[in-house]
Amino acid sequence: MNEQNIDLVIFGGMGDLAGRKLLPALYQIERSGLLSERIRLAVVARENIETKAFLAYAEQRIRKAIPSAEWVESVWEKLARRFSYLNIDFSNKKDFSRLKGWTDPNRLLICYMATPPSLFGAISQHLFDAGCIQESTRIVLEKPIGHNLESSCQVNDTVGRYFSERNIYRIDHYLGKETVQNLLALRFANRMINSQWDNTCIDHIQITVAETVGIEGRWGYYDQVGQLRDMLQNHLLQLLCMVAMEPPNSFAADEIRAEKIKILRALTIIDESKVEEHAVRGQYSAGWIAGQPVRGYTEEVDCKNEVSKTETFVAIKAHIDNWRWSGVPFYLRTGKRLGEKVTQVVITYKDQPHGIFPNRTDTSMNRLVIRLQPNEGIQLEMVAKKQSLKDRLSLEKRVLNLDFFDATGEERIPDAYERLLLEVFKGDQWLFVSREEIEASWHWCDSLIQAWQAKSLKVHRYSSGSTGPAKAEFLIERDQRSWFEE
Amino acid sequence: MNEQNIDLVIFGGMGDLAGRKLLPALYQIERSGLLSERIRLAVVARENIETKAFLAYAEQRIRKAIPSAEWVESVWEKLARRFSYLNIDFSNKKDFSRLKGWTDPNRLLICYMATPPSLFGAISQHLFDAGCIQESTRIVLEKPIGHNLESSCQVNDTVGRYFSERNIYRIDHYLGKETVQNLLALRFANRMINSQWDNTCIDHIQITVAETVGIEGRWGYYDQVGQLRDMLQNHLLQLLCMVAMEPPNSFAADEIRAEKIKILRALTIIDESKVEEHAVRGQYSAGWIAGQPVRGYTEEVDCKNEVSKTETFVAIKAHIDNWRWSGVPFYLRTGKRLGEKVTQVVITYKDQPHGIFPNRTDTSMNRLVIRLQPNEGIQLEMVAKKQSLKDRLSLEKRVLNLDFFDATGEERIPDAYERLLLEVFKGDQWLFVSREEIEASWHWCDSLIQAWQAKSLKVHRYSSGSTGPAKAEFLIERDQRSWFEE
Repeated sequence: MNEQNIDLVIFGGMGDLAGRKLLPALYQIERSGLLSERIRLAVVARENIETKAFLAYAEQRIRKAIPSAEWVESVWEKLARRFSYLNIDFSNKKDFSRLKGWTDPNRLLICYMATPPSLFGAISQHLFDAGCIQESTRIVLEKPIGHNLESSCQVNDTVGRYFSERNIYRIDHYLGKETVQNLLALRFANRMINSQWDNTCIDHIQITVAETVGIEGRWGYYDQVGQLRDMLQNHLLQLLCMVAMEPPNSFAADEIRAEKIKILRALTIIDESKVEEHAVRGQYSAGWIAGQPVRGYTEEVDCKNEVSKTETFVAIKAHIDNWRWSGVPFYLRTGKRLGEKVTQVVITYKDQPHGIFPNRTDTSMNRLVIRLQPNEGIQLEMVAKKQSLKDRLSLEKRVLNLDFFDATGEERIPDAYERLLLEVFKGDQWLFVSREEIEASWHWCDSLIQAWQAKSLKVHRYSSGSTGPAKAEFLIERDQRSWFEE
Repeated sequence: MNEQNIDLVIFGGMGDLAGRKLLPALYQIERSGLLSERIRLAVVARENIETKAFLAYAEQRIRKAIPSAEWVESVWEKLARRFSYLNIDFSNKKDFSRLKGWTDPNRLLICYMATPPSLFGAISQHLFDAGCIQESTRIVLEKPIGHNLESSCQVNDTVGRYFSERNIYRIDHYLGKETVQNLLALRFANRMINSQWDNTCIDHIQITVAETVGIEGRWGYYDQVGQLRDMLQNHLLQLLCMVAMEPPNSFAADEIRAEKIKILRALTIIDESKVEEHAVRGQYSAGWIAGQPVRGYTEEVDCKNEVSKTETFVAIKAHIDNWRWSGVPFYLRTGKRLGEKVTQVVITYKDQPHGIFPNRTDTSMNRLVIRLQPNEGIQLEMVAKKQSLKDRLSLEKRVLNLDFFDATGEERIPDAYERLLLEVFKGDQWLFVSREEIEASWHWCDSLIQAWQAKSLKVHRYSSGSTGPAKAEFLIERDQRSWFEE
């Protein structure tokens, strides 16, 4: 079988993820000339429409998602010719014979589950029953994989009955971001960075994923989950792994995953004795976002529990019990309805052992700021002499930009899904999450949740549009540090 | 006595250095509001003119030296009022009574020797005889201080008879450059830099001082001296000290000088057994500079020896025998009539111990480039992921600018002489060269010259406008390295 002959089937192809991310990503890959001639595409959904109608819909979604200057009619036509639309009710076993009819046993099948996780099992079962699954067939899963260790094991067990681990591609789209890969280049291709990436040189690390959105009509679901499970268990811990892992032997998926899992297993369990000092929970109240008034969490129109104690914000002081990071706190925080949408990793280096400059301050410590949103980029904060005849030895902070868009760069930043789809086609799992990782993450999160439930950890209110509850400031300021603000 | 009441006397005030550097520097200090009201200025020279005529001359020299936008009539008027012109023949003892009449024993006297070094002794003697020198009187000396260890001791002894070491300010104007002070900030205020400043992290260091000028009418003098004595003994070795010295306890002059002297004493003597591998001498032949034909060294109009073997170029591979720098070569080179005027220090970090990126090359090693000319500035060369969907793990070099003139900076870069004059007024010797340093530098240079004389080290011809003799390339390429070219 020639691996280059690929059939990609998107389950839930009329859904939000496909429209916002997958279809535009496929278009951009086509536009870049990187979509092999041998790739066919199928979209599977329950809407009873023809391929032509689907294409009209797809065109509209892609045009909406990309800058108009990037629309090239001929590229779209080429992409459109690859598509088939298959009308299949996922709960109806018989419908899958239609898919079987479309597939070709001589071609590599990739099933992309752009569906709610509750359907993973049924779809896999039906695919199997219809004879679609071969030894080589790949499956791509979107989060969440369960809502705790037990349920994630169930999902993994179910999918694992039909697909071997090496064919399961679990997406955490943060891993597909250019900045995350640039972080790897920074860490592993710069001696200056690499040789100082430990507790002798680094004071502490902050990871922030701040959202301005609220619950967006999924209150019922979210209230069962909360921010720790929704965001920290996956995105923040994956970022933490990329920042903290030992240099892998190579970029082979097995090597990277082996290093990531070591980090996840080394996370200090935050038990009842520690939880009050190491975790802060918050819930947004009414406030203002971008000049608009917004409702509080328990006032949302679809709120089903006006006394809900579910956290929409969480701040954690984490530690990694290994040789490299012993004693270096990792401050993690994520929340909804915060004042600014920002995702960043901030590495603060230790101060000089001895100060010989008169006006030295805390703010003049070296910092490496890795921004994933809103603008991907990396900044290095250094200290230089203040350019002045009057000030003999005054210092000032200088920010060096390692931005993607510098004076000469014209290329756009590829979306994470473009990279990830290319890796799925290539069959390389290095940017996907292994079962072991998922389960180790849940193990740590479950312990934390258990501890805060046992201690009835308070949920602190914070105004929408703020930076979160004051208690989260205290979490870090108690250590004579503060959250990084630009 | 109030230290703020200062009389600065410039000997040789009608000369080249005063006109190009000292008068414009005084103007700029005045313009910055940093020239104390209590400072009076005198210019001493043999021209029989009045103060008024001198001021006309001074105005013309200052206007020529500064951008026209920086000329402020009121600043000049304020500066002009401070000046007295004294007509004194330096060889005529009696003339100095005129100076004595101008000085005031209640004010601090600073004597700036902008004269040939051969006059230092006579002027000092006459100043002493005229009763001008008090315990507090300062003297500022320009290079060269001798042409070898013995003669430099003589100069220092002579001056030392009238002035104590703490009142002698020996100028190496490279030390007054903003970039050199920024190098100190980089080294001692950035943990990221400081903790990697040694033989475990740094591969090698290059110091280049390339001139496009030739001998400029001083052939007779230069031919007795050569490039090693003219440039390397002072400027390059001072730069080397600033780069290589241990972090001083403070910026106090004694502390900095103690560290510099340790470096100079730790320089491995290049003896006869080493000289052929560690030193390259060159002499320029005819060629082209900036599109104009220029003569060779032995064809210059004032050439007095057509078979001269004096070097106008020297490249040295030096080592520092101490704990920090053991095994790290310092490649030094300086020459006249080279293709480009550039003064720079380049620190090349070691490569990663292990390479996991496919397209890693030598050119992607981290480098810190400290440029003193033509544009003062500091660059950090790092490696980042190539911004591309196609290239998965390709790297590219990114240059981070720590330039003085960034987007926000409007301030001009002060000239070295502005800083140095302010330090003389202040009475701080931290940017001046001590007797011990001068003598240690000469000791090392003398040994080197002795060795190359004993071995009759060849003088390689190089075309004017080139990068020097091919042999200088070989000096470094033998070590699988190469001279840094932007």
